[in-house]
Amino acid sequence: MKERFSGTVLRNVEGADTKRPTMGEIGLNHFAPYLMNRVMSRWNANLADELKALDITTAKMRTLAILSITPSVTINELSVFAVTEQSTMSRTLDSLEEQGYIRRQPRSGDMRVRDVTITEEGRAAFEKLWPTMYDSLLQMFHGIEEAEYRAFISVLHRIMHNIRKHDI
Amino acid sequence: MKERFSGTVLRNVEGADTKRPTMGEIGLNHFAPYLMNRVMSRWNANLADELKALDITTAKMRTLAILSITPSVTINELSVFAVTEQSTMSRTLDSLEEQGYIRRQPRSGDMRVRDVTITEEGRAAFEKLWPTMYDSLLQMFHGIEEAEYRAFISVLHRIMHNIRKHDI
Repeated sequence: MKERFSGTVLRNVEGADTKRPTMGEIGLNHFAPYLMNRVMSRWNANLADELKALDITTAKMRTLAILSITPSVTINELSVFAVTEQSTMSRTLDSLEEQGYIRRQPRSGDMRVRDVTITEEGRAAFEKLWPTMYDSLLQMFHGIEEAEYRAFISVLHRIMHNIRKHDI
Repeated sequence: MKERFSGTVLRNVEGADTKRPTMGEIGLNHFAPYLMNRVMSRWNANLADELKALDITTAKMRTLAILSITPSVTINELSVFAVTEQSTMSRTLDSLEEQGYIRRQPRSGDMRVRDVTITEEGRAAFEKLWPTMYDSLLQMFHGIEEAEYRAFISVLHRIMHNIRKHDI
């Protein structure tokens, strides 16, 4: 009979005799990237549905959220922060500009770079979305204590540090 | 002058006078869904790159991972677990079947349902991928203690419970 898995999930296998645990030993439900992909796919789909009722896309919501707290950013930075492909981000910015929610201006000193800023109208539009976003966060973390939330965020920061390739 | 934000992120605002904190007060880097989307986008991209060298797609890797620990599943279940659209999953299964890695059989009792199982060849193929998957997990959680990992997983389980809509 196979022994029950009782070891640690995160075994350091480098240069040691320690064997990797198998997928079966860890279990899909204890494999963090699996859970995170499942969770984010659902959260993104739920939020997109709620945003549809407010007549706005996820890419626009993310763009306004980022711009609401940043003085100005480039399209490059926006597409990384919003986890949105450059081509989609470019179309999103066209549309947000038409709606009067953002402005794009060539940077003085480097005319090839265009800085994106939010307008007062854009700010007002984001304020209307924010309760939906925030209440989704509350639903997501229902029953989770503030201290646990902080510990969770702290792990996410270290993961980000471990896997990031961008400088931004 | 605006007071510095010192409150909790997760304020219960239902039926209370408590106001929602703003996005600026929380900060993008303390807004968990933002961090999780960033992290998973990067992790998925990194892993896809490494899998390319092994001549396999993310959808195939996920399918083999799931099947390696489940006796049999339907295409419906597979597409939820693998966070892959049904049409992509259908093509993925066609290709895995051609490679001899999986089998599809009509369920006795309900011929409309086809159960998917992994073959010995599929198992062997997954075993070749597993070190890449597992070592990516180790890299992701580098510097994170096992106890923190468990607490992180526990929060993810509660999030999943809070936001899931599927029964599976």
